[in-house]
Amino acid sequence: MPSADASRKSQEKPREIMDAAEDFAKERYGVSSMIQSQEKPDRVLVRVSNLTVKKADEVVWVRARVHTSRAKGKQCFLVLRQQQFNVQALVAVGDHASKQMVKFAANINKESIVDVEGVVRKVNQKIGSCTQQDVELHVQKEVCNLVKANQPKGMLTKKKQPSIFQIYVISLAEPRLPLQLDDAVRPEVEGEEEGRATVNQDTRLDNRVIDLRTSTSQAVFRLQSGICHLFRETLINKGFVEIQTPKIISAASEGGANVFTVSYFKNNAYLAQSPQLYKQMCICADFEKVFCIGPVFRAEDSNTHRHLTEFVGLDIEMAFSYHYHEVVEEIADTLVQIFKGLQERFQTEIQTVNKQFPCEPFKFLEPTLRLEYCEALAMLREAGIEMGDEEDLSTPNEKLLGRLVKEKYDTDFYILDKYPLAVRPFYTMPDPRNPKQSNSYDMFMRGEEILSGAQRIHDPQLLTERALHHGIDLEKIKAYIDSFRFGAPPHAGGGIGLERVTMLFLGLHNVRQTSMFPRDPKRLTP
Amino acid sequence: MPSADASRKSQEKPREIMDAAEDFAKERYGVSSMIQSQEKPDRVLVRVSNLTVKKADEVVWVRARVHTSRAKGKQCFLVLRQQQFNVQALVAVGDHASKQMVKFAANINKESIVDVEGVVRKVNQKIGSCTQQDVELHVQKEVCNLVKANQPKGMLTKKKQPSIFQIYVISLAEPRLPLQLDDAVRPEVEGEEEGRATVNQDTRLDNRVIDLRTSTSQAVFRLQSGICHLFRETLINKGFVEIQTPKIISAASEGGANVFTVSYFKNNAYLAQSPQLYKQMCICADFEKVFCIGPVFRAEDSNTHRHLTEFVGLDIEMAFSYHYHEVVEEIADTLVQIFKGLQERFQTEIQTVNKQFPCEPFKFLEPTLRLEYCEALAMLREAGIEMGDEEDLSTPNEKLLGRLVKEKYDTDFYILDKYPLAVRPFYTMPDPRNPKQSNSYDMFMRGEEILSGAQRIHDPQLLTERALHHGIDLEKIKAYIDSFRFGAPPHAGGGIGLERVTMLFLGLHNVRQTSMFPRDPKRLTP
Repeated sequence: MPSADASRKSQEKPREIMDAAEDFAKERYGVSSMIQSQEKPDRVLVRVSNLTVKKADEVVWVRARVHTSRAKGKQCFLVLRQQQFNVQALVAVGDHASKQMVKFAANINKESIVDVEGVVRKVNQKIGSCTQQDVELHVQKEVCNLVKANQPKGMLTKKKQPSIFQIYVISLAEPRLPLQLDDAVRPEVEGEEEGRATVNQDTRLDNRVIDLRTSTSQAVFRLQSGICHLFRETLINKGFVEIQTPKIISAASEGGANVFTVSYFKNNAYLAQSPQLYKQMCICADFEKVFCIGPVFRAEDSNTHRHLTEFVGLDIEMAFSYHYHEVVEEIADTLVQIFKGLQERFQTEIQTVNKQFPCEPFKFLEPTLRLEYCEALAMLREAGIEMGDEEDLSTPNEKLLGRLVKEKYDTDFYILDKYPLAVRPFYTMPDPRNPKQSNSYDMFMRGEEILSGAQRIHDPQLLTERALHHGIDLEKIKAYIDSFRFGAPPHAGGGIGLERVTMLFLGLHNVRQTSMFPRDPKRLTP
Repeated sequence: MPSADASRKSQEKPREIMDAAEDFAKERYGVSSMIQSQEKPDRVLVRVSNLTVKKADEVVWVRARVHTSRAKGKQCFLVLRQQQFNVQALVAVGDHASKQMVKFAANINKESIVDVEGVVRKVNQKIGSCTQQDVELHVQKEVCNLVKANQPKGMLTKKKQPSIFQIYVISLAEPRLPLQLDDAVRPEVEGEEEGRATVNQDTRLDNRVIDLRTSTSQAVFRLQSGICHLFRETLINKGFVEIQTPKIISAASEGGANVFTVSYFKNNAYLAQSPQLYKQMCICADFEKVFCIGPVFRAEDSNTHRHLTEFVGLDIEMAFSYHYHEVVEEIADTLVQIFKGLQERFQTEIQTVNKQFPCEPFKFLEPTLRLEYCEALAMLREAGIEMGDEEDLSTPNEKLLGRLVKEKYDTDFYILDKYPLAVRPFYTMPDPRNPKQSNSYDMFMRGEEILSGAQRIHDPQLLTERALHHGIDLEKIKAYIDSFRFGAPPHAGGGIGLERVTMLFLGLHNVRQTSMFPRDPKRLTP
């Protein structure tokens, strides 16, 4: 029985890998039994990032991955990695480490997790290949001026003392890695440095757990966590309430195309293409200013660099007094607060990503530039593009417009207002001054759309007319239209794509780089 | 064409409802044209909550719902409601309001949204039925000592001046409401006060947009927003990273039962029953401490007070050094920080809910009480319950245990540790001391489970053995098991049900009260 087996294992002493008949250090290394919470040792593991000259001559325990190992005569150099930090460790034959121990250390598979006890030593020459450049962790003979870490303050003594240097494998990695981490962070440079391997996207995604360990991935997703945090922080300070909207819905309410069907007991249901209708209902329910962060599902068979079948939507909806620009300003300011917060709090992460994917810093204006659609059309036409007044922007034209705006206004972020009514969803409020325009807007980062929004129709009669005009089955949106029958404030909002914001802020080129476990028509695993 | 029509409407003067041939005030009331962002008036709308004696004698504009209206001779009393706040307004025939205007005000359908200009008057006797007890909003003749609000500071004058009192309907509610808000907040008292209407659950949920307007609902969901905020605030302070995990998955990975099937292009996919496997993969990917908030789907045909087919999971996963209690302590402390934060920041909301649903304040200990399963069994057996050592707790036994623990330890929150291995999922780490036990735990609030968690197996070989023991198809969980092949730290975690925490903290009796748009086997709308 596995559990009995597991229980038995835990009673065992650490297994020795090699014949240790003549090994004086045999109690100081090995593959540890599986940690099943057998005990609560009084041992503090020091973070690799804290291994600095401040800790020089202290004896410390570290848990880290073996990033690389290199044997050299009677010595073995390990690079120990913990998240984005790494330190060099030296295991050398001497009073504390036997020949066998050094050999054991040299043979530990890369990516294995080890517990190492050693002494922190200041080095004379900076170690350029590690983040901890000024120290090394020594697992070797020279015992002098040691400070045993984690002893009660009064017991700190700076004298020679017998320290036991140890190295145990906590979790052994299989010997053949499906991808090498060093390859996975190598910048792709065309033409030059031929033969230096990089890792293609499918290999990365097939082995995502390893790909996510790179300094680049760690930085990307820490920054993404920061985007969510800044989004909420800003909105909560503005008096917004967080809501949770259902993802399983009874009818394909936003038009019917591109929706996933779910078997729901004996019937069918659908996956929400956005929280749109529910956040509007919350406005009708007097929450006034709401936001939500959640998955959004699109059954589009698009295999582009910026489409996913499941992505994370950062959604906002807000009642306004007289003009939807009140809302546009709040949303734009929220994005500006995010950009500022990222540049202030995540500079290390930005620089880490830039090492692999060089990119100009993200530029934005305060207040945010707002162009009307007709102005954008004029700019594009001047650049030689032929477009009708009621035509939507194609992806190449969006990008071209982004470049034109950058040249003229020096900003990577802007609002495009007053879209043609014909290219917007049925619930978009028409512009009272011009029946072919609408009170709707998109927002762009580096020439790509990251937000789509509008004043919504809050009048059930006009909403019904517009739904019919779009050929929508009124029966399917009855609950939605009924929400506006008992008094509804004018309101507007928008939905932001999290993966796109992360991608475009960092100047990356594919949303699969900014979705932990991306979903597209061809990928559902891992 | 609707847009042209809408555009035309906006050009019109406000429509008058009645014959206004002899009405001197006819320009001061009516149904406003639909707000389509025609203009940006320089007018500030004052919050109802800010209508206090500090604003006495100021002329203000307010936007609010007509909660009730009552005509009385030449006067009309309106209660104007904005979220959980309300104020009495008086429209009386005089220099500024005509007979027709008063009649118009008296006939506005309840729940309509109105813009009202009036003067704030201190009242001599507190208005017990309103939150703003010390003032009234007067739309009537006595013009004296007025301060026109929102004028530049230098222009403030305390003299008689011609103020225009106005009342416009911004959004007209239909005349027959499907439920009355006053009924919807009435405490259900058995036996007494017969004939006083309350609203049953289906009527509430069928008309959720109106039910959510009650002071009770407003308080419940503001507090729920606070739970999410406190959860994240605590974890971000503890160094956790927020992750986003996919909801569409390729295989029914957690056992296979109770999973919704999705049509995914030409194949089938499934809705994730929890972010379990993905948050563990993030641990294997070195994120160390992660959390996520997102929907969780369970295709269980359970129609109980505490089951939903879609609910919100607050999930935590964390690598630990030597013992899973390191994680248990972090999770318990996170919940304690949530309870404390709610009691500190949401006292008004708690009291509002208590008015309708009276309840003892939520009690908890620091540090949190942790009982072992065998201790709980002993307590239940002493209370006369017959249970086997490896039997799971039934719902009635959970509740009984909650009462016994409350009596003995005076806490509504505790941890039950060391569940029998037999009743836990395949990925649960067996207890090395006792093969029939496991390193797993639940947490309880007021005798109901709100969290389930465990140390997870991080060794691919033991994980494979346990999966086979549970009859799980290894092919379906290949990506999951493979995640542990390249070094995996020991880790533990847990998942919290948001709706249950809200319900049990507030002492409510049904998770449908704490899910904005609940989903169960019989309900998919609105």
